[in-house]
Amino acid sequence: MSAHPQLDSQGRLQHLLTIDGLPASIITQILDTAQHFKETGADSKKLPLLAGKSVFNLFFEPSTRTRTTFEIAAKRLSADVINLNVAASSQSKGETLLDTVDNLSAMSADMFVVRHAESGAAHMIARHVAAGIHVVNAGDGRHAHPTQALLDMFTIRHFKGSFQNLRVAIIGDVLHSRVARSQIHALTTLKVPEVRVIAPKTLIPKDVENMGVHVYHDMQKGLKDVDVVMALRLQNERMNGALLPSREEFFKYYGLTPEKLAVARSDAIVMHPGPMNRGVEIDSAVADGPQSVILSQVTFGIFVRMAVMAILAENT
Amino acid sequence: MSAHPQLDSQGRLQHLLTIDGLPASIITQILDTAQHFKETGADSKKLPLLAGKSVFNLFFEPSTRTRTTFEIAAKRLSADVINLNVAASSQSKGETLLDTVDNLSAMSADMFVVRHAESGAAHMIARHVAAGIHVVNAGDGRHAHPTQALLDMFTIRHFKGSFQNLRVAIIGDVLHSRVARSQIHALTTLKVPEVRVIAPKTLIPKDVENMGVHVYHDMQKGLKDVDVVMALRLQNERMNGALLPSREEFFKYYGLTPEKLAVARSDAIVMHPGPMNRGVEIDSAVADGPQSVILSQVTFGIFVRMAVMAILAENT
Amino acid sequence: MSAHPQLDSQGRLQHLLTIDGLPASIITQILDTAQHFKETGADSKKLPLLAGKSVFNLFFEPSTRTRTTFEIAAKRLSADVINLNVAASSQSKGETLLDTVDNLSAMSADMFVVRHAESGAAHMIARHVAAGIHVVNAGDGRHAHPTQALLDMFTIRHFKGSFQNLRVAIIGDVLHSRVARSQIHALTTLKVPEVRVIAPKTLIPKDVENMGVHVYHDMQKGLKDVDVVMALRLQNERMNGALLPSREEFFKYYGLTPEKLAVARSDAIVMHPGPMNRGVEIDSAVADGPQSVILSQVTFGIFVRMAVMAILAENT
Repeated sequence: MSAHPQLDSQGRLQHLLTIDGLPASIITQILDTAQHFKETGADSKKLPLLAGKSVFNLFFEPSTRTRTTFEIAAKRLSADVINLNVAASSQSKGETLLDTVDNLSAMSADMFVVRHAESGAAHMIARHVAAGIHVVNAGDGRHAHPTQALLDMFTIRHFKGSFQNLRVAIIGDVLHSRVARSQIHALTTLKVPEVRVIAPKTLIPKDVENMGVHVYHDMQKGLKDVDVVMALRLQNERMNGALLPSREEFFKYYGLTPEKLAVARSDAIVMHPGPMNRGVEIDSAVADGPQSVILSQVTFGIFVRMAVMAILAENT
Repeated sequence: MSAHPQLDSQGRLQHLLTIDGLPASIITQILDTAQHFKETGADSKKLPLLAGKSVFNLFFEPSTRTRTTFEIAAKRLSADVINLNVAASSQSKGETLLDTVDNLSAMSADMFVVRHAESGAAHMIARHVAAGIHVVNAGDGRHAHPTQALLDMFTIRHFKGSFQNLRVAIIGDVLHSRVARSQIHALTTLKVPEVRVIAPKTLIPKDVENMGVHVYHDMQKGLKDVDVVMALRLQNERMNGALLPSREEFFKYYGLTPEKLAVARSDAIVMHPGPMNRGVEIDSAVADGPQSVILSQVTFGIFVRMAVMAILAENT
Repeated sequence: MSAHPQLDSQGRLQHLLTIDGLPASIITQILDTAQHFKETGADSKKLPLLAGKSVFNLFFEPSTRTRTTFEIAAKRLSADVINLNVAASSQSKGETLLDTVDNLSAMSADMFVVRHAESGAAHMIARHVAAGIHVVNAGDGRHAHPTQALLDMFTIRHFKGSFQNLRVAIIGDVLHSRVARSQIHALTTLKVPEVRVIAPKTLIPKDVENMGVHVYHDMQKGLKDVDVVMALRLQNERMNGALLPSREEFFKYYGLTPEKLAVARSDAIVMHPGPMNRGVEIDSAVADGPQSVILSQVTFGIFVRMAVMAILAENT
C-alpha cells in the first residue's frame, strides 16, 4: 500500500476518504473533470463511463440530500446503483460492518459510497476491500465530508476565478462539523491566503489554529473584507449537553444577516452546505439574496461527484 | 404565467395539478396518447422519450401502489427515477418543503411527482419551480388526484366507447375523497350527461350539487339504470371523529353487493381506485365478478401516467 | 396445470418455489447456465436477456442481502427492478396479499421475487398469477429457500468437481432452517452419497431421517472424513421459548472451530449462508480461514439468480 491511504503507488486516487493530505494536483484534477462534465452536461446528461459498474450507496446514517446526489451522479455515468439503508437489516441481525462489506464486495461491487456516524468508518472499509474496489466517504462522524468540500472549492473557483488573493470565512459550529474540517483542509491545500473561522469559543476546536486558520469570535471583525462566506449548519442533533444558550441567541450573535454581511466585500459570495436552519445560522434575506450561491453548490455537487467516481473508475 | 396554473401561454400542459379547469382537449390528448402507448406497448415496453431525464418521486405520504405505477411508467420511458420518502430525512432536519424542492431542482430534476397530505402542496411546488421543470400531483390532501381520474376516464372510454349517453354513479366517502373530486371534474368536463353521487349525508360535501352532480342517499335509487359504478375507498385513516356508525353498518347500506348492483344496467362496469376494503365498500363477489374492471384500471394507469409524463416532457 | 407446481406441461420451469421435487435435470440446467454467466461475466456484466421486463422484489420480511443479490442479478440482465417493502404500505391499509399481487400483475409485472414469513406464501402467489408471470421464492417461513440451496450446489460443484463420492455435513439449527430443508432436498436429488445433519436433539425435525440424511448429535463423529461442511445460522429470531441453554453453550458443543474441523478431510470446504453469528455457530478462525468458501458462495449467488431469472424468462 502507498504511504497515503487514498492513493496507489503511482499516486493515483483509489479512494476518496478525506481532504487531509490529498495533493493539490488531485483536487485540481477532480475540479477540472467536474468542469468538463458541467460544460458538456447540458447536451447529453448520460455518459457511459460507469456502464456495467455497480455502485453501492451504503448509508448507516439517513441523508436524502447526499444519497440522492450520489445516486444521480452514478446514474448519469450509467452505473447500476444499489441503495442500502444498513441500519434496517443486516446490522440488526448482528452482522459486523466488515462482514457486510465483504458480502457486498463478493456481489461484485465496484464502488462503495459510505456514510457512517463513526469517524474513520470509510477508512476502515477502504483498508479492508480488495484492490479494484473504490470507497468514497460521504461523511463519517465529525471527521470528514470530502465531496462537500470539493464542491465548495468548485463553487469558489467558479465565482472567483481562482483561489489566489482570497479571504474566506467559515462561520458557526466548527467543533462538530466534518464539513468545516474538510473545507479548511481544502482551502489551505489550495493555498487560499487567508482562512478565518468565526464562532463562539465553545464551538471552536482547541487545535484549530494549527490547521492554518485565524480564529474570530466576533462577526463584525471576522467578516470584514472577506470574499467568501461559508455558513455551517448548526448541528443540533450532534450536540451533547448545552454548549449554546439558545438558537435565538446564536442567531443574534452569529446568524448571517444582511447587516452582518455588509462588512464583507460587496461581491462576496455566501455558501451553505444545507440543509439550512433559516433563522438560526442564516437569515432568509441572505439565503435567498443576490450574494447567495447555495443552489449553485447543489448543482455543482452532481458534477463533482461524477468526477470523483469517473476518476476512481478510470484508476482501476 | 398563464391564467391557468397548469398551462403555458400557448395552452400547453406544463403541470398536471388538478382536473378542475383542465380543458377537455387536454384530457383527450392524454387519453389518446395513453391509447397509443397501450396499442404499441405489447411489442416493446421501453421507449426513449424520457431518456436522460430525472424524475423525482417525492412522496410525503406513503403509497406503494401509486408510487410504483409512476416509477414503472417513468422507467418505461427510459427516465432515471429517484424515489424520495421525504418524511424520513430532510423534513426531520427542519428543512422546509420549498427548500427541499429547490435543492432537488438544483440537482437537475426534470419532473416531480408529488404526494402530500396537505391540499395545495403540488400547486405550491408548481408555482415555485423554474420553467422547464414539471410537477405531477399524485394526490394532495382531500383536494385532487388527477391521474387517478384520468385513468378512470380511460377505462370508461375503453369499455363504453365514448362518454355520450352515460349514467355514472360514484358511491361512498365523497367528502374525504380527492379521487371523487377529480372524477367529478373529469366526468363533467367530458360532458357525461348524468353524474350521481351516492352516500350518507355525513359523507357528502355541502356544495357538491354545484359541481353538476345529482345526490342520492339510497343505493336502490342511485344505481338504477347506471352504466358505470365507481366505488370509493372508505378513507378510515382520514376520518376525524365518528361520521359513521360502523364499518358493518356502512356495508349494509352502501357496500356494493351483487343484489344492489342488480338495478344497474346489465352491462354496467364496476370500478374502484384501490386498495379495496373488501366487505366494507365492496363485496368480493362484485370485486372479482364479471362486471369488475378494477384490474384493467391498474393496467391502464401505467399508460395514462406514461402519457402525462411524455406530454409534459414534450412541452418543455 | 402440470402435476408439479413449478413446471409446465412440457416440464419447463415456470416458477422456482422449492427444491423438493425439482428434477435433477432442472437443477443441472440452472447450475450450467450460472456457470456460463460466471465464465462470460468478467468481460461484460450487462446482458440484455430481461431488457424491458419488470422484476418486482416483493419482500414482506426485511433482508438486505437476499434482496440485493436479486436486484443485482436482475439489473445485470437489464430488467427494470421495483423494490417493494410491503409491510410498510398496502398491508397497513388492509389490502390482502393476493390483491397486492393482482395489482402488481396488472402493472405488467413479469416476475415476482417473494420473501414472506409464512410458509407457502410463494406457492400461493404462483397458483394465483396469470400464465407468463413467474414467481421466485426468496424464502418462505421455515419452508424453503431454493436459490440459497442452488448457489450452495454451485459452490460444491465448483470446488469438488461433481457430487459423486461426497460426504456432506449440515450443522446447527436444522429445525428452524428453510435453508437446511432446501439443501437436503438438493443434495439428495443430486445423489450425494452421504448427507449428515449434526445438531442437538432439540434442533432436529422429527422426520428428518425420512429425507435421506444421517443424524449426528456429536461434532467429532459427524464431521469425521466429510468433504463439505455447511454451517447454519442460529435463527435466534425464530426461536420460541428456550430450546437452547445459551449461545455460549451452543458454541462450546456445536460451534465450528478449527479443532472440530480437524477431523474432516483436509481439503474439506466450509460454507455458511450468512449472515454469520461469529462465536456462535462459527469461529472467526474458520470463517476467515483457508477452507472457507463463504464469500465465493455470495459471488456465485449472483450467477445462480441470474440463471434462474433467465431460464424463467426464456420459458414464457
